[in-house]
Amino acid sequence: MIKFTEKAPYAPVEYSYDVEEILYKGKSKFQDIMVIRNPHFGRMLILDDVVQLTERDEFFYHEMLTHVVMHAHPDPRKVIVIGGGDGGVVREVLKHKTVEKVYLVEIDEDVINVSKRFFPNVASDVDNLRVEIKIMDGAEFVKKRKLSDVDAVIIDSTDIIGFARSLFTVDFFTSVKNCLTDEGMFVTHSESLHFHKDMAIEVQEILKKVFPLVDLYTAPIATYPGNWWTFSVASKKLSPREIKRKPKIQTKYYSDEIHQQSFMPKGLYEKLILRKLQW
Amino acid sequence: MIKFTEKAPYAPVEYSYDVEEILYKGKSKFQDIMVIRNPHFGRMLILDDVVQLTERDEFFYHEMLTHVVMHAHPDPRKVIVIGGGDGGVVREVLKHKTVEKVYLVEIDEDVINVSKRFFPNVASDVDNLRVEIKIMDGAEFVKKRKLSDVDAVIIDSTDIIGFARSLFTVDFFTSVKNCLTDEGMFVTHSESLHFHKDMAIEVQEILKKVFPLVDLYTAPIATYPGNWWTFSVASKKLSPREIKRKPKIQTKYYSDEIHQQSFMPKGLYEKLILRKLQW
Repeated sequence: MIKFTEKAPYAPVEYSYDVEEILYKGKSKFQDIMVIRNPHFGRMLILDDVVQLTERDEFFYHEMLTHVVMHAHPDPRKVIVIGGGDGGVVREVLKHKTVEKVYLVEIDEDVINVSKRFFPNVASDVDNLRVEIKIMDGAEFVKKRKLSDVDAVIIDSTDIIGFARSLFTVDFFTSVKNCLTDEGMFVTHSESLHFHKDMAIEVQEILKKVFPLVDLYTAPIATYPGNWWTFSVASKKLSPREIKRKPKIQTKYYSDEIHQQSFMPKGLYEKLILRKLQW
Repeated sequence: MIKFTEKAPYAPVEYSYDVEEILYKGKSKFQDIMVIRNPHFGRMLILDDVVQLTERDEFFYHEMLTHVVMHAHPDPRKVIVIGGGDGGVVREVLKHKTVEKVYLVEIDEDVINVSKRFFPNVASDVDNLRVEIKIMDGAEFVKKRKLSDVDAVIIDSTDIIGFARSLFTVDFFTSVKNCLTDEGMFVTHSESLHFHKDMAIEVQEILKKVFPLVDLYTAPIATYPGNWWTFSVASKKLSPREIKRKPKIQTKYYSDEIHQQSFMPKGLYEKLILRKLQW
Protein backbone atom coordinates (compact mmCIF):
# COMPACT_ATOMS: atom_id res chain seq x y z
CA MET A 1 0.00 0.00 0.00
CA ILE A 2 1.16 3.52 -0.79
CA LYS A 3 1.58 5.65 2.33
CA PHE A 4 1.25 9.33 3.05
CA THR A 5 3.38 10.42 6.01
CA GLU A 6 2.45 13.72 7.55
CA LYS A 7 5.03 16.44 8.18
CA ALA A 8 3.32 18.12 11.12
CA PRO A 9 5.28 20.84 12.91
CA TYR A 10 6.57 19.90 16.39
CA ALA A 11 4.78 16.56 16.50
CA PRO A 12 6.84 13.85 18.20
CA VAL A 13 4.61 11.17 16.68
CA GLU A 14 4.56 10.92 12.91
CA TYR A 15 1.18 9.92 11.44
CA SER A 16 0.95 7.82 8.26
CA TYR A 17 -2.09 6.93 6.22
CA ASP A 18 -2.77 4.37 3.50
CA VAL A 19 -3.38 6.03 0.14
CA GLU A 20 -5.89 4.34 -2.17
CA GLU A 21 -5.80 7.14 -4.69
CA ILE A 22 -4.31 10.60 -5.14
CA LEU A 23 -7.28 12.64 -6.30
CA TYR A 24 -5.60 16.01 -6.56
CA LYS A 25 -2.13 17.46 -6.26
CA GLY A 26 -1.55 21.14 -6.87
CA LYS A 27 0.34 24.20 -5.78
CA SER A 28 -1.46 27.42 -4.93
CA LYS A 29 0.15 30.83 -4.38
CA PHE A 30 0.51 29.89 -0.72
CA GLN A 31 0.84 26.16 -0.28
CA ASP A 32 0.81 22.63 -1.66
CA ILE A 33 -2.70 21.22 -1.83
CA MET A 34 -3.40 17.51 -1.99
CA VAL A 35 -6.49 15.33 -1.80
CA ILE A 36 -6.08 11.61 -1.19
CA ARG A 37 -8.48 8.76 -0.48
CA ASN A 38 -7.89 6.55 2.56
CA PRO A 39 -9.86 3.31 3.20
CA HIS A 40 -10.94 4.40 6.70
CA PHE A 41 -11.18 8.17 6.58
CA GLY A 42 -12.39 8.60 3.00
CA ARG A 43 -11.14 11.73 1.27
CA MET A 44 -8.51 13.74 3.09
CA LEU A 45 -7.47 17.35 2.49
CA ILE A 46 -3.74 17.91 2.98
CA LEU A 47 -2.03 21.33 2.94
CA ASP A 48 1.77 21.51 2.95
CA ASP A 49 1.86 17.83 3.95
CA VAL A 50 -0.34 18.38 7.01
CA VAL A 51 -3.79 16.77 7.26
CA GLN A 52 -6.50 19.42 7.52
CA LEU A 53 -9.63 17.33 7.42
CA THR A 54 -11.00 13.92 6.56
CA GLU A 55 -14.47 13.16 5.25
CA ARG A 56 -15.08 10.75 8.07
CA ASP A 57 -14.22 12.81 11.11
CA GLU A 58 -14.15 16.50 10.08
CA PHE A 59 -17.32 17.14 12.09
CA PHE A 60 -15.51 16.78 15.43
CA TYR A 61 -13.33 19.77 14.67
CA HIS A 62 -15.86 21.88 12.78
CA GLU A 63 -18.66 21.35 15.28
CA MET A 64 -16.48 22.02 18.28
CA LEU A 65 -14.83 25.08 16.75
CA THR A 66 -18.21 26.56 15.84
CA HIS A 67 -20.97 25.61 18.23
CA VAL A 68 -19.50 26.56 21.58
CA VAL A 69 -19.41 30.29 20.82
CA MET A 70 -22.61 30.06 18.77
CA HIS A 71 -24.47 28.64 21.78
CA ALA A 72 -22.82 30.95 24.31
CA HIS A 73 -24.03 33.99 22.36
CA PRO A 74 -27.70 34.93 22.91
CA ASP A 75 -28.42 35.94 19.31
CA PRO A 76 -25.60 35.48 16.78
CA ARG A 77 -26.42 37.30 13.55
CA LYS A 78 -23.12 38.31 12.01
CA VAL A 79 -20.08 36.03 11.94
CA ILE A 80 -16.56 36.30 10.56
CA VAL A 81 -14.73 33.08 9.68
CA ILE A 82 -11.00 33.52 9.09
CA GLY A 83 -9.40 30.70 7.12
CA GLY A 84 -11.86 27.86 6.87
CA GLY A 85 -11.75 27.81 3.09
CA ASP A 86 -12.95 24.20 3.11
CA GLY A 87 -16.35 25.49 4.24
CA GLY A 88 -16.81 23.25 7.28
CA VAL A 89 -17.19 26.10 9.77
CA VAL A 90 -19.51 28.03 7.45
CA ARG A 91 -21.72 24.95 7.17
CA GLU A 92 -21.93 24.70 10.97
CA VAL A 93 -22.49 28.44 11.47
CA LEU A 94 -25.40 28.43 9.03
CA LYS A 95 -27.17 25.72 11.01
CA HIS A 96 -28.07 28.62 13.30
CA LYS A 97 -31.15 30.27 11.80
CA THR A 98 -30.37 33.55 13.58
CA VAL A 99 -27.36 34.09 11.32
CA GLU A 100 -27.86 36.72 8.62
CA LYS A 101 -24.33 37.17 7.38
CA VAL A 102 -21.08 35.21 7.33
CA TYR A 103 -17.84 36.68 6.04
CA LEU A 104 -15.58 33.87 4.89
CA VAL A 105 -12.12 35.43 4.82
CA GLU A 106 -9.77 32.95 3.21
CA ILE A 107 -6.35 33.93 1.91
CA ASP A 108 -6.10 31.01 -0.51
CA GLU A 109 -8.91 30.80 -3.08
CA ASP A 110 -7.65 27.43 -4.31
CA VAL A 111 -8.60 25.83 -0.98
CA ILE A 112 -12.22 26.88 -1.52
CA ASN A 113 -12.24 25.56 -5.08
CA VAL A 114 -10.61 22.25 -4.18
CA SER A 115 -13.05 21.79 -1.32
CA LYS A 116 -16.07 22.54 -3.51
CA ARG A 117 -14.83 19.96 -5.98
CA PHE A 118 -13.73 17.16 -3.65
CA PHE A 119 -15.61 17.79 -0.39
CA PRO A 120 -19.11 18.83 -1.45
CA ASN A 121 -20.53 17.89 1.96
CA VAL A 122 -18.05 20.16 3.71
CA ALA A 123 -18.21 23.08 1.26
CA SER A 124 -21.98 22.66 0.98
CA ASP A 125 -22.86 26.21 2.10
CA VAL A 126 -19.97 28.23 0.76
CA ASP A 127 -22.19 29.65 -1.99
CA ASN A 128 -25.12 30.33 0.34
CA LEU A 129 -26.54 33.82 -0.15
CA ARG A 130 -25.80 34.65 3.49
CA VAL A 131 -22.06 34.06 2.85
CA GLU A 132 -19.72 36.73 1.51
CA ILE A 133 -16.35 35.35 0.46
CA LYS A 134 -13.32 37.62 0.86
CA ILE A 135 -10.09 36.35 -0.65
CA MET A 136 -7.59 38.15 1.54
CA ASP A 137 -5.51 38.05 4.72
CA GLY A 138 -7.83 37.76 7.74
CA ALA A 139 -5.65 40.10 9.79
CA GLU A 140 -6.08 42.81 7.15
CA PHE A 141 -9.81 42.24 6.98
CA VAL A 142 -10.50 42.74 10.70
CA LYS A 143 -8.01 45.62 10.92
CA LYS A 144 -9.78 47.58 8.21
CA ARG A 145 -13.26 46.94 9.54
CA LYS A 146 -14.63 50.01 11.32
CA LEU A 147 -17.92 48.70 12.79
CA SER A 148 -18.34 46.81 16.08
CA ASP A 149 -21.25 44.76 14.84
CA VAL A 150 -19.97 41.19 14.67
CA ASP A 151 -21.27 38.53 17.07
CA ALA A 152 -18.61 35.89 16.57
CA VAL A 153 -15.16 35.69 15.04
CA ILE A 154 -13.91 32.18 14.38
CA ILE A 155 -10.37 31.36 13.30
CA ASP A 156 -10.01 28.16 11.35
CA SER A 157 -6.42 28.50 10.17
CA THR A 158 -3.65 26.04 9.49
CA ASP A 159 -1.16 25.35 12.29
CA ILE A 160 -0.15 28.37 14.33
CA ILE A 161 3.51 27.83 13.49
CA GLY A 162 3.20 28.40 9.77
CA PHE A 163 2.02 31.45 7.86
CA ALA A 164 -1.02 31.68 10.15
CA ARG A 165 1.35 33.06 12.81
CA SER A 166 0.23 36.68 12.17
CA LEU A 167 -3.20 35.74 13.48
CA PHE A 168 -1.88 35.17 17.00
CA THR A 169 -0.74 38.61 18.13
CA VAL A 170 -2.04 41.36 20.47
CA ASP A 171 -2.52 43.58 17.41
CA PHE A 172 -4.69 41.09 15.65
CA PHE A 173 -6.75 40.20 18.72
CA THR A 174 -7.31 43.91 19.36
CA SER A 175 -8.67 44.30 15.85
CA VAL A 176 -10.92 41.30 16.46
CA LYS A 177 -12.20 42.83 19.69
CA ASN A 178 -12.96 46.07 17.90
CA CYS A 179 -15.13 44.20 15.41
CA LEU A 180 -17.19 42.53 18.11
CA THR A 181 -20.39 43.71 19.76
CA ASP A 182 -20.41 43.83 23.56
CA GLU A 183 -21.76 40.30 23.65
CA GLY A 184 -19.37 39.13 20.95
CA MET A 185 -17.30 35.95 21.12
CA PHE A 186 -13.98 34.93 19.66
CA VAL A 187 -12.60 31.43 19.20
CA THR A 188 -9.53 29.86 17.66
CA HIS A 189 -7.97 26.42 17.71
CA SER A 190 -4.72 26.44 19.70
CA GLU A 191 -2.99 23.12 19.05
CA SER A 192 -2.64 19.98 21.22
CA LEU A 193 -2.54 19.85 25.00
CA HIS A 194 -0.23 16.86 24.71
CA PHE A 195 2.34 18.21 22.29
CA HIS A 196 2.03 22.00 22.16
CA LYS A 197 0.77 23.12 25.52
CA ASP A 198 3.25 26.03 25.61
CA MET A 199 1.56 27.32 22.49
CA ALA A 200 -1.89 26.96 24.01
CA ILE A 201 -0.64 28.89 27.07
CA GLU A 202 0.84 31.57 24.84
CA VAL A 203 -2.46 32.05 22.98
CA GLN A 204 -4.29 32.29 26.32
CA GLU A 205 -1.79 34.88 27.58
CA ILE A 206 -2.01 37.04 24.48
CA LEU A 207 -5.80 36.86 24.54
CA LYS A 208 -5.83 37.94 28.20
CA LYS A 209 -4.02 41.12 27.27
CA VAL A 210 -7.00 42.03 25.11
CA PHE A 211 -10.15 40.33 26.42
CA PRO A 212 -11.56 40.28 29.97
CA LEU A 213 -12.84 36.70 29.65
CA VAL A 214 -10.56 34.00 28.25
CA ASP A 215 -11.08 30.25 28.53
CA LEU A 216 -10.02 26.93 27.06
CA TYR A 217 -11.87 23.84 25.97
CA THR A 218 -10.77 20.65 24.27
CA ALA A 219 -12.00 18.02 21.85
CA PRO A 220 -10.55 14.70 20.68
CA ILE A 221 -9.48 14.95 17.01
CA ALA A 222 -8.05 11.65 15.75
CA THR A 223 -6.20 13.09 12.78
CA TYR A 224 -4.44 16.02 14.44
CA PRO A 225 -1.19 14.96 16.14
CA GLY A 226 -1.56 14.92 19.90
CA ASN A 227 -5.27 14.56 19.34
CA TRP A 228 -6.28 16.33 22.56
CA TRP A 229 -7.02 19.53 20.70
CA THR A 230 -7.41 22.90 22.43
CA PHE A 231 -9.73 25.74 21.51
CA SER A 232 -9.09 29.19 22.98
CA VAL A 233 -12.17 31.29 23.46
CA ALA A 234 -12.50 34.93 24.52
CA SER A 235 -15.26 37.44 25.05
CA LYS A 236 -15.97 40.93 26.32
CA LYS A 237 -18.50 40.04 29.00
CA LEU A 238 -20.40 36.77 28.49
CA SER A 239 -19.03 33.47 29.79
CA PRO A 240 -18.33 31.01 26.97
CA ARG A 241 -19.15 28.18 29.38
CA GLU A 242 -22.78 29.25 29.64
CA ILE A 243 -25.25 28.10 27.01
CA LYS A 244 -27.54 31.00 26.18
CA ARG A 245 -29.91 29.34 23.70
CA LYS A 246 -30.91 25.88 22.65
CA PRO A 247 -31.56 26.03 18.91
CA LYS A 248 -32.66 22.79 17.28
CA ILE A 249 -29.67 21.87 15.16
CA GLN A 250 -28.33 18.49 14.05
CA THR A 251 -24.83 17.60 15.21
CA LYS A 252 -22.89 14.36 15.44
CA TYR A 253 -20.70 15.16 18.46
CA TYR A 254 -21.50 18.60 19.90
CA SER A 255 -24.30 18.75 22.48
CA ASP A 256 -25.13 20.81 25.57
CA GLU A 257 -23.45 18.13 27.66
CA ILE A 258 -20.31 18.19 25.52
CA HIS A 259 -20.30 21.99 25.65
CA GLN A 260 -20.11 21.93 29.42
CA GLN A 261 -17.76 18.99 29.71
CA SER A 262 -15.29 20.17 27.10
CA PHE A 263 -14.10 23.11 29.19
CA MET A 264 -10.97 22.42 31.13
CA PRO A 265 -11.58 21.78 34.84
CA LYS A 266 -10.50 24.81 36.85
CA GLY A 267 -7.71 23.04 38.76
CA LEU A 268 -6.12 21.68 35.60
CA TYR A 269 -6.52 25.03 33.86
CA GLU A 270 -4.72 26.85 36.66
CA LYS A 271 -1.86 24.37 36.52
CA LEU A 272 -1.66 24.85 32.76
CA ILE A 273 -1.50 28.63 32.98
CA LEU A 274 1.09 28.53 35.78
CA ARG A 275 3.11 26.15 33.59
CA LYS A 276 2.87 23.47 36.27
CA LEU A 277 1.53 20.62 34.19
CA GLN A 278 4.04 17.83 34.43
CA TRP A 279 4.19 16.74 30.81
CA MET B 1 16.90 9.26 11.97
CA ILE B 2 15.95 5.63 12.55
CA LYS B 3 12.19 5.16 12.86
CA PHE B 4 10.02 2.72 14.72
CA THR B 5 6.63 2.24 13.07
CA GLU B 6 3.97 0.72 15.25
CA LYS B 7 1.89 -2.25 14.12
CA ALA B 8 -1.23 -1.56 16.14
CA PRO B 9 -4.25 -3.77 15.43
CA TYR B 10 -7.13 -2.04 13.61
CA ALA B 11 -5.55 1.43 13.71
CA PRO B 12 -6.20 3.43 10.56
CA VAL B 13 -3.40 5.84 11.47
CA GLU B 14 0.09 4.39 11.69
CA TYR B 15 2.28 5.97 14.39
CA SER B 16 6.06 6.33 13.91
CA TYR B 17 8.67 7.44 16.41
CA ASP B 18 12.27 8.55 16.09
CA VAL B 19 14.66 6.04 17.64
CA GLU B 20 17.79 7.42 19.31
CA GLU B 21 18.81 4.05 20.66
CA ILE B 22 17.54 0.50 20.89
CA LEU B 23 18.11 -0.35 24.54
CA TYR B 24 16.66 -3.85 24.56
CA LYS B 25 15.33 -6.34 22.07
CA GLY B 26 14.23 -9.77 23.22
CA LYS B 27 11.70 -12.53 22.80
CA SER B 28 9.80 -13.92 25.77
CA LYS B 29 7.65 -17.06 25.81
CA PHE B 30 4.71 -14.85 24.77
CA GLN B 31 5.87 -11.85 22.79
CA ASP B 32 8.62 -9.67 21.36
CA ILE B 33 9.84 -7.12 23.89
CA MET B 34 11.68 -3.97 22.89
CA VAL B 35 12.84 -0.84 24.68
CA ILE B 36 13.83 2.20 22.62
CA ARG B 37 14.72 5.78 23.45
CA ASN B 38 12.89 8.62 21.71
CA PRO B 39 13.94 12.30 22.00
CA HIS B 40 10.49 13.44 23.15
CA PHE B 41 9.02 10.51 25.06
CA GLY B 42 12.21 9.12 26.59
CA ARG B 43 12.24 5.37 27.00
CA MET B 44 9.41 3.45 25.40
CA LEU B 45 8.27 -0.12 26.10
CA ILE B 46 7.09 -1.95 22.99
CA LEU B 47 5.44 -5.39 22.97
CA ASP B 48 4.86 -7.17 19.65
CA ASP B 49 5.53 -3.86 17.88
CA VAL B 50 2.84 -2.00 19.85
CA VAL B 51 3.77 0.87 22.19
CA GLN B 52 2.77 0.04 25.78
CA LEU B 53 4.18 2.99 27.65
CA THR B 54 6.57 5.88 27.44
CA GLU B 55 8.53 7.40 30.32
CA ARG B 56 7.11 10.81 29.56
CA ASP B 57 3.39 10.15 29.46
CA GLU B 58 2.74 6.77 31.09
CA PHE B 59 1.11 8.51 34.06
CA PHE B 60 -1.98 9.48 32.03
CA TYR B 61 -2.87 5.87 31.48
CA HIS B 62 -1.73 4.45 34.81
CA GLU B 63 -3.37 7.16 36.89
CA MET B 64 -6.64 7.03 35.00
CA LEU B 65 -6.80 3.23 35.01
CA THR B 66 -6.16 3.10 38.75
CA HIS B 67 -7.54 6.09 40.62
CA VAL B 68 -11.14 6.18 39.44
CA VAL B 69 -12.04 2.86 41.08
CA MET B 70 -9.69 3.51 44.01
CA HIS B 71 -11.54 6.75 44.80
CA ALA B 72 -15.01 5.34 44.15
CA HIS B 73 -14.39 2.61 46.74
CA PRO B 74 -14.80 3.68 50.38
CA ASP B 75 -11.93 1.60 51.75
CA PRO B 76 -9.82 -0.35 49.23
CA ARG B 77 -7.59 -2.86 51.01
CA LYS B 78 -7.10 -5.75 48.64
CA VAL B 79 -6.47 -5.29 44.91
CA ILE B 80 -5.83 -7.63 41.98
CA VAL B 81 -3.91 -6.25 39.00
CA ILE B 82 -4.06 -8.46 35.91
CA GLY B 83 -1.31 -7.80 33.40
CA GLY B 84 0.45 -4.60 34.34
CA GLY B 85 3.85 -6.26 34.52
CA ASP B 86 5.53 -2.90 34.00
CA GLY B 87 4.42 -1.98 37.52
CA GLY B 88 2.72 1.32 36.69
CA VAL B 89 -0.67 0.36 38.10
CA VAL B 90 0.89 -1.20 41.21
CA ARG B 91 2.74 2.07 41.85
CA GLU B 92 -0.51 4.02 41.62
CA VAL B 93 -2.49 1.53 43.75
CA LEU B 94 0.09 1.71 46.54
CA LYS B 95 -0.29 5.47 46.76
CA HIS B 96 -3.46 4.58 48.67
CA LYS B 97 -2.42 3.92 52.26
CA THR B 98 -5.51 1.80 52.90
CA VAL B 99 -4.12 -0.91 50.61
CA GLU B 100 -2.76 -3.96 52.42
CA LYS B 101 -2.31 -6.39 49.56
CA VAL B 102 -1.86 -6.25 45.80
CA TYR B 103 -1.76 -9.36 43.67
CA LEU B 104 0.15 -8.60 40.48
CA VAL B 105 -0.92 -11.36 38.09
CA GLU B 106 1.27 -11.13 35.01
CA ILE B 107 1.57 -13.94 32.49
CA ASP B 108 4.95 -12.81 31.17
CA GLU B 109 7.71 -12.58 33.78
CA ASP B 110 10.06 -10.99 31.26
CA VAL B 111 7.91 -7.85 31.13
CA ILE B 112 8.41 -7.37 34.88
CA ASN B 113 12.16 -7.88 34.59
CA VAL B 114 12.57 -5.58 31.60
CA SER B 115 10.54 -2.90 33.35
CA LYS B 116 12.57 -3.16 36.55
CA ARG B 117 15.73 -2.75 34.50
CA PHE B 118 14.68 0.02 32.09
CA PHE B 119 11.74 1.77 33.79
CA PRO B 120 12.72 1.97 37.47
CA ASN B 121 10.26 4.83 38.05
CA VAL B 122 7.41 2.75 36.71
CA ALA B 123 8.36 -0.57 38.33
CA SER B 124 9.29 1.24 41.55
CA ASP B 125 6.89 -0.67 43.81
CA VAL B 126 6.85 -4.10 42.23
CA ASP B 127 8.99 -5.48 45.04
CA ASN B 128 7.01 -3.74 47.79
CA LEU B 129 6.15 -6.10 50.65
CA ARG B 130 2.46 -5.48 50.07
CA VAL B 131 2.78 -6.89 46.53
CA GLU B 132 2.51 -10.59 45.71
CA ILE B 133 3.57 -11.41 42.17
CA LYS B 134 1.86 -14.33 40.44
CA ILE B 135 3.31 -15.37 37.11
CA MET B 136 0.25 -16.89 35.50
CA ASP B 137 -2.82 -16.31 33.35
CA GLY B 138 -5.08 -13.75 35.04
CA ALA B 139 -8.22 -15.62 33.98
CA GLU B 140 -6.96 -18.74 35.77
CA PHE B 141 -6.07 -16.76 38.88
CA VAL B 142 -9.51 -15.24 39.41
CA LYS B 143 -11.28 -18.46 38.45
CA LYS B 144 -9.45 -20.46 41.11
CA ARG B 145 -9.90 -17.88 43.84
CA LYS B 146 -12.61 -18.91 46.29
CA LEU B 147 -12.92 -15.83 48.53
CA SER B 148 -15.02 -12.71 47.82
CA ASP B 149 -12.63 -10.40 49.61
CA VAL B 150 -11.13 -8.21 46.89
CA ASP B 151 -11.98 -4.49 46.70
CA ALA B 152 -10.75 -3.76 43.19
CA VAL B 153 -9.76 -5.78 40.12
CA ILE B 154 -7.83 -3.82 37.51
CA ILE B 155 -6.99 -5.17 34.06
CA ASP B 156 -3.91 -3.66 32.47
CA SER B 157 -3.49 -5.99 29.52
CA THR B 158 -2.22 -5.54 25.99
CA ASP B 159 -4.76 -4.83 23.25
CA ILE B 160 -8.01 -6.75 23.54
CA ILE B 161 -7.53 -8.24 20.08
CA GLY B 162 -4.38 -10.18 20.89
CA PHE B 163 -3.82 -12.93 23.43
CA ALA B 164 -5.58 -10.81 26.07
CA ARG B 165 -8.87 -11.77 24.37
CA SER B 166 -9.67 -14.44 27.02
CA LEU B 167 -9.99 -11.63 29.57
CA PHE B 168 -13.05 -10.18 27.87
CA THR B 169 -15.68 -12.91 28.30
CA VAL B 170 -18.78 -13.47 30.48
CA ASP B 171 -16.94 -16.37 32.13
CA PHE B 172 -14.01 -14.24 33.10
CA PHE B 173 -16.08 -11.29 34.30
CA THR B 174 -18.18 -13.70 36.39
CA SER B 175 -15.03 -14.98 38.05
CA VAL B 176 -13.98 -11.38 38.69
CA LYS B 177 -17.35 -10.61 40.26
CA ASN B 178 -17.03 -13.63 42.52
CA CYS B 179 -13.72 -12.32 43.83
CA LEU B 180 -15.14 -8.92 44.72
CA THR B 181 -16.71 -7.77 47.98
CA ASP B 182 -20.18 -6.19 47.75
CA GLU B 183 -18.56 -2.78 47.39
CA GLY B 184 -15.96 -4.07 44.94
CA MET B 185 -15.05 -2.38 41.69
CA PHE B 186 -13.72 -3.64 38.38
CA VAL B 187 -12.01 -1.67 35.63
CA THR B 188 -10.36 -2.42 32.31
CA HIS B 189 -9.14 -0.35 29.39
CA SER B 190 -11.37 -0.89 26.35
CA GLU B 191 -9.61 0.71 23.37
CA SER B 192 -10.25 3.98 21.51
CA LEU B 193 -13.59 5.72 21.07
CA HIS B 194 -12.37 6.97 17.70
CA PHE B 195 -11.11 3.74 16.18
CA HIS B 196 -12.58 0.83 18.13
CA LYS B 197 -15.90 1.96 19.51
CA ASP B 198 -17.55 -1.36 18.58
CA MET B 199 -15.07 -3.02 20.89
CA ALA B 200 -15.83 -0.60 23.70
CA ILE B 201 -19.55 -1.31 23.21
CA GLU B 202 -18.90 -5.05 23.25
CA VAL B 203 -17.00 -4.83 26.53
CA GLN B 204 -19.85 -2.76 28.02
CA GLU B 205 -22.41 -5.32 26.84
CA ILE B 206 -20.53 -8.30 28.22
CA LEU B 207 -20.00 -6.51 31.54
CA LYS B 208 -23.73 -5.73 31.77
CA LYS B 209 -24.50 -9.45 31.61
CA VAL B 210 -22.55 -9.83 34.83
CA PHE B 211 -22.59 -6.56 36.81
CA PRO B 212 -25.56 -4.35 37.78
CA LEU B 213 -23.56 -1.12 37.36
CA VAL B 214 -21.47 -0.58 34.24
CA ASP B 215 -20.06 2.71 33.02
CA LEU B 216 -17.45 4.23 30.72
CA TYR B 217 -14.91 6.99 31.10
CA THR B 218 -12.17 8.27 28.82
CA ALA B 219 -8.72 9.82 28.95
CA PRO B 220 -6.45 11.29 26.27
CA ILE B 221 -3.42 9.03 25.71
CA ALA B 222 -1.07 10.46 23.07
CA THR B 223 0.71 7.22 22.29
CA TYR B 224 -2.26 4.89 21.89
CA PRO B 225 -3.76 5.09 18.39
CA GLY B 226 -7.04 6.95 18.38
CA ASN B 227 -5.90 8.55 21.61
CA TRP B 228 -9.41 9.03 23.03
CA TRP B 229 -9.02 5.99 25.27
CA THR B 230 -11.94 4.25 26.98
CA PHE B 231 -12.02 2.60 30.37
CA SER B 232 -14.88 0.26 31.21
CA VAL B 233 -15.80 0.12 34.86
CA ALA B 234 -18.26 -2.14 36.67
CA SER B 235 -19.44 -2.69 40.20
CA LYS B 236 -21.97 -4.57 42.30
CA LYS B 237 -23.66 -1.61 43.94
CA LEU B 238 -21.54 1.55 44.24
CA SER B 239 -21.48 4.14 41.46
CA PRO B 240 -18.01 4.53 39.97
CA ARG B 241 -18.84 8.19 39.26
CA GLU B 242 -19.04 9.01 42.96
CA ILE B 243 -15.88 9.82 44.84
CA LYS B 244 -16.06 8.15 48.24
CA ARG B 245 -12.82 9.36 49.81
CA LYS B 246 -10.27 12.08 49.26
CA PRO B 247 -6.91 10.59 50.20
CA LYS B 248 -3.91 12.89 49.88
CA ILE B 249 -2.03 11.42 46.96
CA GLN B 250 0.22 13.01 44.37
CA THR B 251 -0.88 12.72 40.76
CA LYS B 252 0.01 14.55 37.57
CA TYR B 253 -3.31 14.30 35.73
CA TYR B 254 -5.97 12.59 37.85
CA SER B 255 -7.95 14.79 40.22
CA ASP B 256 -11.49 14.88 41.64
CA GLU B 257 -12.44 17.20 38.78
CA ILE B 258 -10.97 14.89 36.17
CA HIS B 259 -12.71 11.91 37.82
CA GLN B 260 -16.09 13.55 37.34
CA GLN B 261 -15.37 14.98 33.92
CA SER B 262 -13.88 11.85 32.44
CA PHE B 263 -17.18 9.94 32.51
CA MET B 264 -19.05 10.00 29.27
CA PRO B 265 -22.00 12.40 29.23
CA LYS B 266 -25.24 10.41 29.44
CA GLY B 267 -26.55 11.48 26.03
CA LEU B 268 -23.36 10.47 24.26
CA TYR B 269 -23.20 7.23 26.24
CA GLU B 270 -26.71 6.27 25.21
CA LYS B 271 -25.92 6.93 21.57
CA LEU B 272 -22.79 4.80 21.88
CA ILE B 273 -24.62 1.85 23.41
CA LEU B 274 -27.43 2.07 20.85
CA ARG B 275 -24.72 2.12 18.14
CA LYS B 276 -25.96 5.50 16.97
CA LEU B 277 -22.69 7.42 17.07
CA GLN B 278 -22.04 8.65 13.55
CA TRP B 279 -18.35 7.88 13.21
